[in-house]
Amino acid sequence: MSKDIMAIPKGMRDFPPEIAIIRKQVFSKLEKVFMRFGFDPLETPILELWDTLKGKYGPEAENKMIYKFKDEWSGKELALRYDLTVPLARFVSENPTTPLPFKRYAIGKVYRHEQPQRGRYREFYQCDADIIGSERPEADAEILNLIGSVMREFNLPGYTVKINDRRLLKGIFEKGLGITTNILEVYRQIDKLDKIGWVKVSESLKQILPINIIKKIKDVIDIRGSASETLNEIENMFGKIPEVTKASEHLQQMLSLAKKTSFKLDLSMVRGLDYYTGPIFETIVKEPKIGSITGGGRYDQLLGVYGKSFPATGTTIGVERLIDVGIELGLFKGIKKTVADVYVVNLQVQEYAWRVANVLRNEDINTRVDIMGRTYKKQLEKANKLETRFIVLVGIKEKSKGTVTLIDKKTGKKTIEKILDAKKKIKTLLTI
Amino acid sequence: MSKDIMAIPKGMRDFPPEIAIIRKQVFSKLEKVFMRFGFDPLETPILELWDTLKGKYGPEAENKMIYKFKDEWSGKELALRYDLTVPLARFVSENPTTPLPFKRYAIGKVYRHEQPQRGRYREFYQCDADIIGSERPEADAEILNLIGSVMREFNLPGYTVKINDRRLLKGIFEKGLGITTNILEVYRQIDKLDKIGWVKVSESLKQILPINIIKKIKDVIDIRGSASETLNEIENMFGKIPEVTKASEHLQQMLSLAKKTSFKLDLSMVRGLDYYTGPIFETIVKEPKIGSITGGGRYDQLLGVYGKSFPATGTTIGVERLIDVGIELGLFKGIKKTVADVYVVNLQVQEYAWRVANVLRNEDINTRVDIMGRTYKKQLEKANKLETRFIVLVGIKEKSKGTVTLIDKKTGKKTIEKILDAKKKIKTLLTI
Repeated sequence: MSKDIMAIPKGMRDFPPEIAIIRKQVFSKLEKVFMRFGFDPLETPILELWDTLKGKYGPEAENKMIYKFKDEWSGKELALRYDLTVPLARFVSENPTTPLPFKRYAIGKVYRHEQPQRGRYREFYQCDADIIGSERPEADAEILNLIGSVMREFNLPGYTVKINDRRLLKGIFEKGLGITTNILEVYRQIDKLDKIGWVKVSESLKQILPINIIKKIKDVIDIRGSASETLNEIENMFGKIPEVTKASEHLQQMLSLAKKTSFKLDLSMVRGLDYYTGPIFETIVKEPKIGSITGGGRYDQLLGVYGKSFPATGTTIGVERLIDVGIELGLFKGIKKTVADVYVVNLQVQEYAWRVANVLRNEDINTRVDIMGRTYKKQLEKANKLETRFIVLVGIKEKSKGTVTLIDKKTGKKTIEKILDAKKKIKTLLTI
Repeated sequence: MSKDIMAIPKGMRDFPPEIAIIRKQVFSKLEKVFMRFGFDPLETPILELWDTLKGKYGPEAENKMIYKFKDEWSGKELALRYDLTVPLARFVSENPTTPLPFKRYAIGKVYRHEQPQRGRYREFYQCDADIIGSERPEADAEILNLIGSVMREFNLPGYTVKINDRRLLKGIFEKGLGITTNILEVYRQIDKLDKIGWVKVSESLKQILPINIIKKIKDVIDIRGSASETLNEIENMFGKIPEVTKASEHLQQMLSLAKKTSFKLDLSMVRGLDYYTGPIFETIVKEPKIGSITGGGRYDQLLGVYGKSFPATGTTIGVERLIDVGIELGLFKGIKKTVADVYVVNLQVQEYAWRVANVLRNEDINTRVDIMGRTYKKQLEKANKLETRFIVLVGIKEKSKGTVTLIDKKTGKKTIEKILDAKKKIKTLLTI
C-alpha cells in the first residue's frame, strides 16, 4: 500500500478529538453571541456555480486561488466557495422576499488554494455576521456591539475596534486634499502606518506625492482625541465636503449606540477590499501581535451585482486566528482528551457497571465503560490516561449494596455513594 | 443579469433560518447523545485524494456518483468525500498511535451525484458513530444502546432495531444449506422479504434454487420467539457450524448488555454493503413508512485496506431522513422564524431601548431591536411578524421610571416591570 493512498490532501487538516472539542466550544460560544443579538443562521452549500463566483474577487484570487472544476455529467462549471459573503448575496437575490432586515450569521468551511503555512490553510472556517436591508447607523452599531460582545465573551484583553469610513477617506484625501492620481497606492501606503510607522510611509509617499500634500496627510492622521472630538476637528477642516459631513453624522450616531464597545477612530485604516462604501471596522488585540481578529464594514453596492440592490453591513470574526490566539493566551479551559467526564471501572461485575453507566448517561453525564474485556487494572490505567474528571469503581461489594466508589480526580476525594447520589453529585460538581 | 448567475447548483440546498434552526437543534441533540456514550468528535476535510477513495465504493458509485477533479496546480486528483467511513479509515491509518478503542462521532456534509428527488440530494449530511479497535460484543452493544438512546431522545414511536449477523447468514445459507452459487442474489432476494413478502421472494428464488432448499430457507426465516430463543433454535439446527456458534455467542453477549433497546433478530436482513463481517443493525419506525432510519454493523476487514487492520463497528444515523420524519411527525417543538425571543419596541426612546436590549443580551436572552428607523407601529408589526415569544415596549413613561411593559405572547399577559425583573422573568419563562 503506497504512502500516498493514506495521505490527507495538502493544506487540509484533520481535527482529532482534543482539537475538535475546543473548536466546537469556540463555534458554539460564537453562535451564542450571534443569537443574543438576534442573528439567525443561514446555511448555503459548499459548491456554487462558477458563474456565481466569477468577477467578484479579482483576477489574482479567481485564477490562482479558487478551486473550480467541470461537472462531468452536466458540463457545468462548479467551484468551492471562497467566502461566505458572495453565497449570502446569491441567496438574497434568489430569495427576494426574504424579510428585511435580514440578520444572518454563518460559520462554515471555505476553500483557498494558498501556499500552506502557519495559520494559513486551504480549507478553513469563516464566521460572518451580516445585516442586509438597513442603510442606517443603527445597523453598523449592532455590528460594533456584536464585536465587543464577542471580545468580552472570549476575555480577549485590551481589544480595540478601529473605525474609519470610506466616505471620510474619499472626502478628505480625494476631494479635500485633491489627490486624484495614484489614490489606491496612497491608501495602500497609509494603511501600513500601524505596522511600519510614519517615517517609512512618508518615504514611500514621496515617490508619488508632493511634500506639501504629504504634510497635510500627516496633519489629518495626527488628529488626537476621542472619536467624537476627532470627527468635530475633521468637520472643522473639511466640513464643506458632503461626503465628510454625511460620514461624520453617520459615525456619530453609530458610536452613540455603541458606547460599551472599546473603539478608536483611525483615519489611516483603509482595509483591502474594494467593495466597502461606508464605515469600516477592524479589531486588534494588544497581545499577541497577530494583526486584526475581526474585519468588516458597510458594502451597499455589492448585492446590486446580482440584481436588486440592498444596503448591507457586517463583519467577519477571524475564527481560525481566534482559536490560535485563544490557545496561545490559554483562554480555553482545560484541554480535554475526551468528552467523557466519567469512566466506570468494574471488577467482575460488568452488567452492574453498564447499569451504573446507563443511569449516568440518562442524566447527560458523558460516561465511558470498558468495551475491550480489559482487566480491572487495565481499565484503571485507561481511565487515568483519558484523564476523565471522575472514576467510578464497582465490584462485588458495591453491587451487593447498590453503591459505587466515586473518585473525584480534581480534589482527590474518594467516597462511597448510592448510585443515584453519585449521579447527583457528579452532575452538581460538573456544573460548578 | 442572467438567471443562471444567481442559481444554486442542482441538488444543493440553502437552509434559511427557520429550517437551519431546526437542523441545528437536531444535530446538537445527536451530539449530546453521542457524547453521553463517550464518543468523541473527529473532523476530517471535505476534500480527499481520489487515491484514498477509489476502489472502496464499487464501479457504479465511483464512475457515476463521486465528484472528482484534477487540482490545476499540483495535478493531483481530488474528490469530494462520499461518506465519513473511508475518511475515518484514512485518519486511523495515518495516525496509528490513536489510543484504542477509538470512539468517534462525525456529523458532516458528503457529496453524491444522484438524480435529485424528494429526500435525495447531492450535498447532504451524514452522521456516524464508530468504535475502532474492539472486536468484542461489548462494542456492538454500545452501538445498539446508542441507537436506542437516539430513538428515545427524538421520541420516535415504535422503533425496532433489526439485528442479524453476517456469520449467521454465511453459516446457515452457505454452509448449512449448501447454497454455493448465486449466493449474493439469494441474499438480495431474502433481504426484500419485509418489503414484498414471502410469495414474491420465493418466486424469485425458484429461478435459482431447488424447491427443497427454498423450503429450508422458509423454515429458518419462520423461526419465532425472542432473540435468545431464536438463537437457541438456530444452534439446535446448525450448531455444528463454527460460524453459527461463534455468531450466536457474540450476539447473546451483545444482547444481554443492550436490554433497554427494543430489538428483533431478523434472519432475513442482509444489508447492501459487502464489507460487514459480524453483527448488522438497521432501525425501522412504525410510522411513517420510510424504510430504515439507522444502518450499520461490524466491519473488521475494511481498515486493513489501508495497512494495519483494526476491528470496527458502528452505525449511521440517517439524519436527513430523521429531520424529514421529525417534521412529518411534528416531533420538533414550534418551528421558529428567528432565534430571537424578545423584540424591544420603542416610542422615541431609542437609547433606552438599546440599554434594555443590552441588559437582556448580557443574560443570553436573544433580543432584537429596531435598526431600520421604523415608527412605533411598524416596529410592532415587525415584532408580530417575527413571532418572538415576548414583546418589550418602552416609551418616555417607562424610561422615566426605569421600567418596561412586558407582553408574553404565549399567555397574552401584559405587565409593567423594572428592567432587571423583566430580565429575570423572561429568563425563567424561557427555561420552563
